[in-house]
Amino acid sequence: MDSDEHTKENEFDALSSDLSGNESSHRNNEKTHDDQNKAGLSDDSIREITDALHDADNDNHLALINELSHADTADLLQKISQEDREDLLENLPIEIDPQTFSYMDSDLCKSTLSAMSASQVAKIISELDSDDALDLVENLDEAFQQDIIKQLSAKTRLAIEEGLTFPEDSAGRLMQREFIAIPQFWTVGKVIDYLRVATDDLPSEFYDIIIIDPLYHVVGEVPLNRVLRSKRKQKIEDLTLDDLHTIPAEMDQEEVALIFRREGLNSAPVVDNDNRLIGVITFDDIIDVIDEEAEEDILKLAGVEGGDLYRAVLSTTGSRFRWLFLNLLTAIVASIVISMFDATIEQIVALAVLMPIVASMGGNAGTQALTVAVRALATKELSSTNTFRVIGKETIVGTLNGIGFAAITGVIAALWFGSHTLGLVIGAAMIINLFFAGFCGAAIPIFLNKIGSDPALSSTVLLTTITDIVGFFAFLGLASIFLI
Amino acid sequence: MDSDEHTKENEFDALSSDLSGNESSHRNNEKTHDDQNKAGLSDDSIREITDALHDADNDNHLALINELSHADTADLLQKISQEDREDLLENLPIEIDPQTFSYMDSDLCKSTLSAMSASQVAKIISELDSDDALDLVENLDEAFQQDIIKQLSAKTRLAIEEGLTFPEDSAGRLMQREFIAIPQFWTVGKVIDYLRVATDDLPSEFYDIIIIDPLYHVVGEVPLNRVLRSKRKQKIEDLTLDDLHTIPAEMDQEEVALIFRREGLNSAPVVDNDNRLIGVITFDDIIDVIDEEAEEDILKLAGVEGGDLYRAVLSTTGSRFRWLFLNLLTAIVASIVISMFDATIEQIVALAVLMPIVASMGGNAGTQALTVAVRALATKELSSTNTFRVIGKETIVGTLNGIGFAAITGVIAALWFGSHTLGLVIGAAMIINLFFAGFCGAAIPIFLNKIGSDPALSSTVLLTTITDIVGFFAFLGLASIFLI
Repeated sequence: MDSDEHTKENEFDALSSDLSGNESSHRNNEKTHDDQNKAGLSDDSIREITDALHDADNDNHLALINELSHADTADLLQKISQEDREDLLENLPIEIDPQTFSYMDSDLCKSTLSAMSASQVAKIISELDSDDALDLVENLDEAFQQDIIKQLSAKTRLAIEEGLTFPEDSAGRLMQREFIAIPQFWTVGKVIDYLRVATDDLPSEFYDIIIIDPLYHVVGEVPLNRVLRSKRKQKIEDLTLDDLHTIPAEMDQEEVALIFRREGLNSAPVVDNDNRLIGVITFDDIIDVIDEEAEEDILKLAGVEGGDLYRAVLSTTGSRFRWLFLNLLTAIVASIVISMFDATIEQIVALAVLMPIVASMGGNAGTQALTVAVRALATKELSSTNTFRVIGKETIVGTLNGIGFAAITGVIAALWFGSHTLGLVIGAAMIINLFFAGFCGAAIPIFLNKIGSDPALSSTVLLTTITDIVGFFAFLGLASIFLI
Repeated sequence: MDSDEHTKENEFDALSSDLSGNESSHRNNEKTHDDQNKAGLSDDSIREITDALHDADNDNHLALINELSHADTADLLQKISQEDREDLLENLPIEIDPQTFSYMDSDLCKSTLSAMSASQVAKIISELDSDDALDLVENLDEAFQQDIIKQLSAKTRLAIEEGLTFPEDSAGRLMQREFIAIPQFWTVGKVIDYLRVATDDLPSEFYDIIIIDPLYHVVGEVPLNRVLRSKRKQKIEDLTLDDLHTIPAEMDQEEVALIFRREGLNSAPVVDNDNRLIGVITFDDIIDVIDEEAEEDILKLAGVEGGDLYRAVLSTTGSRFRWLFLNLLTAIVASIVISMFDATIEQIVALAVLMPIVASMGGNAGTQALTVAVRALATKELSSTNTFRVIGKETIVGTLNGIGFAAITGVIAALWFGSHTLGLVIGAAMIINLFFAGFCGAAIPIFLNKIGSDPALSSTVLLTTITDIVGFFAFLGLASIFLI
């Protein structure tokens, strides 16, 4: 950090901690970077910048934005309104550092880049690491991709084109092509000498040194701290980690993330089909993947597509419509079941009053089992070894809660409508429905996973269809037998 | 890796790739570690071990387990049945490496450790890094904690006791106390010489060197790769990263994770109230946090407590019961609304058939908005700057879908029951309910977050209460006005 930059930063710190009024008085006598200590840009800072933008007080908001880190600039662009965003990007496209785009939400990034010219995007891409560059390009429309690729230097173009040949969400898309590979016979001293001399050829960050044989096959991995703590004459090959985790380029990113997480890896070499080193995946890529996958599951269970927060109203409406339409079909099937018993309901209107209770309890109990199963499948804690144990357990849990709620709702119904038989009928229906809810809640995602479907995507609709049908059918059916 | 260990590993590789029959023929001629390349232990390996266990063929399963990595051993213990687990742990408690426990699900780990004696647990804890040790101890019952702490060495005891003084889920609980701190005036050469000599005092892994002043205040952080690529006479202080991210020990782990994620940090120094260095948090701790927080959100939305997969049936039933009971209250309120219109339903039984459609569509549309809001709050993408924009957008999206589904269900209802007015009534009710669903789906979690409640925990119940009440009230109310 040169001293000039430093002064600037301190000024901004003083400004923004003043604005956000945070309680860090005990550190005020220190040379701290309070603003960096918070996760994200404060709302006050955002407001100040947008106010400056609206005042046409150009210099001020430019200065403020220039002080922001890449992550904060991305945060700013995401949180301001679309008009402000367009205003900012059109007025000062040069001021936005290329790195900023790798921090942005991918949908927003896509729409922002798509509004630019191919040569502008090519310029941005040329300044990024190979993994970040590929990440930006892969989301764009294919025709636009080609326009951009044409404008890249031969080296970057090759990297991008080769990267795009790997399957989506695979290790090959995730990896960076900048890495340190060292022949196995080198000593620690030689490695250090090499690193001191080769400065310009090295990646901006690296965490492990990869040891290769003459054919570029990975022999081992050496964390930097082992290099630093070893004598110069030590052979680098003797420092490799016991377990070597090479990642095939075709491996799905979710599985890569599981390996990183399980083994606590900092980085791992990626190899091609011939087991030759072609890249390296680092922990920061993995953090993104874990985030993404967890987000995908939670959103899919509710029938939402990712990136909704920044999508336009009509496009959001459309994507939500599909899921709701599926649910409408479910609801109509349930209505048909009810209509089969319309004569019964006409005679005892209490049935119409109580029937949603049975269906809704089944849906909720089933969703509990379903969520546990979906999550356990995602983390591979659920596999064929414990499938039957988990389904069995969920069925028992559902049935036990069914018995509990049968007692409660039975008493309530009997007292409310003065009929013991009605109480018994709703109790029996509750047990039947929660038995099915527990069983299906666990079994549906496991079954979908087995046949290669995404368990998070369609489980919920299937489950509520079943719990609605079973709930209405059991309650109204039993009622038509015992109450008429 | 000594050559003896190596031979063992290769034998096991051959065995397990034989068993799992995976398609890595293109790499068979290489000295690979195929088994390490998969995320987790294969089901076949688990089956082989449990079979050996059941055969009382002791030597065989012991040998197989000894070959496993810590993560795989933890995986094995999690996936086998409770009886097998107890069998294994009682027959060979000495064989389980202490590290294994840090890979286990926390609930399962707690019950396993609780079944041991305090001195056994103390022995396990003494062999772990300070952060892993604290992680195990903090989950145990307080009395048992005290018994264990008494048996620890003075140094470990102090670390654990001090660690427990930090709030749960804070940076202080997450950090490890082993780190490399270097005075600011040292040169690169001196740092390397120190690391080579101090081998025994160094943490087993480290990624950054922390630069401190004489009062132990953090001055900067230097990634190891910068040390390696610099000349010996270079001053270490000149190599520090531009942005220093010191983490206060009291900071919540969720916020720490956001900082790591945003800034792509590998490790960060943790400071006490006087801004003095007391520990370091590394990326692997953060990956665990991100996992945990994402899991918490998805499970809470469905009313499930974490660790359910490994919990006993009765305890799971109890924890689920509470959530279902809340939902029962919701359902009863909805029933009361229906009962207000029992005379209307008695006259037109079609209302009973159709009413669940309106309520269920509202619930589903609301859940979409709610999930997006809960997730955006967790990642801090939603804050006071864009609150009104998000609520406004979700309300519009809900209303637009309401109009779409009003048309569809209106036509279906009119055709099914031969009444235009019934079609108009259900259409109007649909629009009203989906308007409220969109608005409340976004507003409820934002409101709960504002008043300091957990938005993931209670949003769903509140939302479905509203969509049920509004749905039934609008549909039956309009019907009683226009159809009777």
